[in-house]
Amino acid sequence: MPKKIFIIGAGLSSGSLIRYLLDQAPKEDWQIVVGDMNLALAEAKIAKNPYGKAIFFDVHDSKICEEQISKTDLVVSLLPAFLHYKAAATALKFGKNFLTASYVSPEIKALDKEIQAKNLLFLNELGADPGIDHLSAMQIFDELKAKGAEILSFKSYTGGLIAPAYDNNPWNYKFTWNPRNVVLAGQGVAKYLQDSQPKYVPYHRLFSSLEKIQIDNYGDFEGYPNRDSLIYRELYGIENIPTILRGTLRRKGFCESWNVFVQLGMTDDSYPIDHSESLTYADFLRSFLPKSDMNLKDQLEKELHFSKQTISKLDWLGIFEPTKIGLEKASPAKILQHLLESKWKLAPKDKDLLVMQHIVEYRLENKNYQLFSTMTLEGNEQETAMSQAVGLPLAVGAHLLMKNQIQGKGVQIPNKRAIYEPILKKLVDFGISFAEKVLPMKS
Amino acid sequence: MPKKIFIIGAGLSSGSLIRYLLDQAPKEDWQIVVGDMNLALAEAKIAKNPYGKAIFFDVHDSKICEEQISKTDLVVSLLPAFLHYKAAATALKFGKNFLTASYVSPEIKALDKEIQAKNLLFLNELGADPGIDHLSAMQIFDELKAKGAEILSFKSYTGGLIAPAYDNNPWNYKFTWNPRNVVLAGQGVAKYLQDSQPKYVPYHRLFSSLEKIQIDNYGDFEGYPNRDSLIYRELYGIENIPTILRGTLRRKGFCESWNVFVQLGMTDDSYPIDHSESLTYADFLRSFLPKSDMNLKDQLEKELHFSKQTISKLDWLGIFEPTKIGLEKASPAKILQHLLESKWKLAPKDKDLLVMQHIVEYRLENKNYQLFSTMTLEGNEQETAMSQAVGLPLAVGAHLLMKNQIQGKGVQIPNKRAIYEPILKKLVDFGISFAEKVLPMKS
Repeated sequence: MPKKIFIIGAGLSSGSLIRYLLDQAPKEDWQIVVGDMNLALAEAKIAKNPYGKAIFFDVHDSKICEEQISKTDLVVSLLPAFLHYKAAATALKFGKNFLTASYVSPEIKALDKEIQAKNLLFLNELGADPGIDHLSAMQIFDELKAKGAEILSFKSYTGGLIAPAYDNNPWNYKFTWNPRNVVLAGQGVAKYLQDSQPKYVPYHRLFSSLEKIQIDNYGDFEGYPNRDSLIYRELYGIENIPTILRGTLRRKGFCESWNVFVQLGMTDDSYPIDHSESLTYADFLRSFLPKSDMNLKDQLEKELHFSKQTISKLDWLGIFEPTKIGLEKASPAKILQHLLESKWKLAPKDKDLLVMQHIVEYRLENKNYQLFSTMTLEGNEQETAMSQAVGLPLAVGAHLLMKNQIQGKGVQIPNKRAIYEPILKKLVDFGISFAEKVLPMKS
Repeated sequence: MPKKIFIIGAGLSSGSLIRYLLDQAPKEDWQIVVGDMNLALAEAKIAKNPYGKAIFFDVHDSKICEEQISKTDLVVSLLPAFLHYKAAATALKFGKNFLTASYVSPEIKALDKEIQAKNLLFLNELGADPGIDHLSAMQIFDELKAKGAEILSFKSYTGGLIAPAYDNNPWNYKFTWNPRNVVLAGQGVAKYLQDSQPKYVPYHRLFSSLEKIQIDNYGDFEGYPNRDSLIYRELYGIENIPTILRGTLRRKGFCESWNVFVQLGMTDDSYPIDHSESLTYADFLRSFLPKSDMNLKDQLEKELHFSKQTISKLDWLGIFEPTKIGLEKASPAKILQHLLESKWKLAPKDKDLLVMQHIVEYRLENKNYQLFSTMTLEGNEQETAMSQAVGLPLAVGAHLLMKNQIQGKGVQIPNKRAIYEPILKKLVDFGISFAEKVLPMKS
């Protein structure tokens, strides 16, 4: 009887995961079961592979849930984060290991003791970000600590972008992931630590709080702080580090132009625009500007001091045109997303680019050093870079767990050597690896 | 048997209301019953007046609620807005009229048909703002319409401030009302109509979206837009007006300085500051500023371009000092409020100032005019201006309703002549009146 791996969800990020596991199935004697509410989607991913099986699966249906999970050997859940719990509790009931690429929820965290008592591993945050960032950062920290280095600063930036060969618009950006999340990104407050001082950046100052980032072979980027970096001190075991910042990467110049939307209030998702269906994009823009006798472009440039370059990027989007929006009772964010989707859409042959860079400053034998550890990954003919980067860590994690080659029990994230080391090693075979560069610093 | 008026709540804004009704009680043959969870507070307001009676009252206790409301002739509720419903439903059950100074809630609105069927009047928004603003604006509109004028623009500003004789700090501001509401004021989006175009102002641009306002005998003020002005087109029966804006008044120069807190993110109430108990105010301020080698004042002036005048106002607050905050797990807004309360506190003899100004543009017989209608009211020895302005419209409304001198049924706000006219007329006796000035405009 082959062993069974049960994958819940056949959506966007499942391709690389399913392909990897099906490839390994003959050698490892596995059956790969893929369950989705949309059976056709699951069938398309299995593509009649004799080692795979597509099933209808609804996590809300307790009978199906128990039936499928009870007869598998490992559960990999790609459900939206808020739906994991039911599958996790069922996996616990039947004594099955459990993998996700999502942040640990308080509900799953609360199962920790029972999971430990049954000697199971529920490994979360094993995707791209969170995931590859944890694996690679922890390896750097553990190696530096082993050498006796003192870690002074950790900055880590990740960005999902368009690959250079397909980068053909003035924003140097296309939607390679959920457009809504891109439009709403950064709302709330960003928190980081600078020279032992917590810093708080409100949303309206986020896109002017930039750091310049250079990536070999890829050129100039910029990073803005991302949500709460302070909590990573504890997660990464670097409680006393003076500086820590996690951020999001965009191509150089993007944030200055994006900031127009933020400054004017056009990313607000909390209220509908009056009569949005009958307005044009120019009307929409004008409704965020004070009264003026100037035309829209002059007003943005002369009254609000946005740069000519930014205005030309806005122009490219068609936002000055008398084109009807055509969306009813839409929020500013929805209208903006609608316009951007028409312009930042991936063409069928377009490939995406995932970039991650850790910048670590440390002190060793009375000298200071700056370490750059950089991963770049482009989409290929089968899969986007994002799908590879989310799916392959999960796939490798599943592979190693099935062969008892990673250790750990309870609710975990991959911040322990026994987990991150074998996974990182195997990811190299799939093009997911980091290039390191160390420069001496003035002390 | 005297008729009974039942006042629920003996708090901040009840003084003028209770005093007025007790004064009228002998002549009108009334008994004034004041109920509060805090019996001592109710007793203090009655001050052993033989026409008054203080009782313990808890709106959540159905028995007490029914007992008291069933034997009264009119209910005036000063409860917090979210607690009105229970009292309103009980008043409906026993067929009693009902007055509040709060915005009409959807729950109370839903009782409208039943209230009409019993021929009762539930009159809301009969305080200062909402209240006096409705009364006075509607009188202007109805008079202009009667003359055949076309109304082109309505702007209305209200501010609760410190009276000039007691205005002795560089902010020209003290807390004359709920400090928390002042710190959080304006969060969300402000909506108004300008030349038939809806305008949306995000919070971070609110305090730089100012209009200069002059008040005779009081000098220079500035107004910023307040929440949703668009809904007032329907409430005021001016659906086709091209320009409408309701706003909040501050003394000239206040908003530029207040904007420091908004721009830096110091009015955010959504997250706690790390270790707030052990930080100083200077640390608190620094946590919202990017890394810099400058001192705090230079950084605010040279990097962030705040004016010297603003920085000197911040200095007066003591925010550059190494004084411990001493609040645990406090949000930025709570910390800021704590500092401001120590500086903007009313002294025992201080008197407040309430200012309201309507600016109406209209066209009559091919000429355009600008009408300024202005109310100013200062606190007196007994009561603050705010308590007078909230309590006296309710008191006069109660008086007239008891004598059947205002007409109307169902759930109402005072936007109909049969309601606003007799109330406005009587308010004049208590110093609440508007001075009008009409200037011709260039057409």
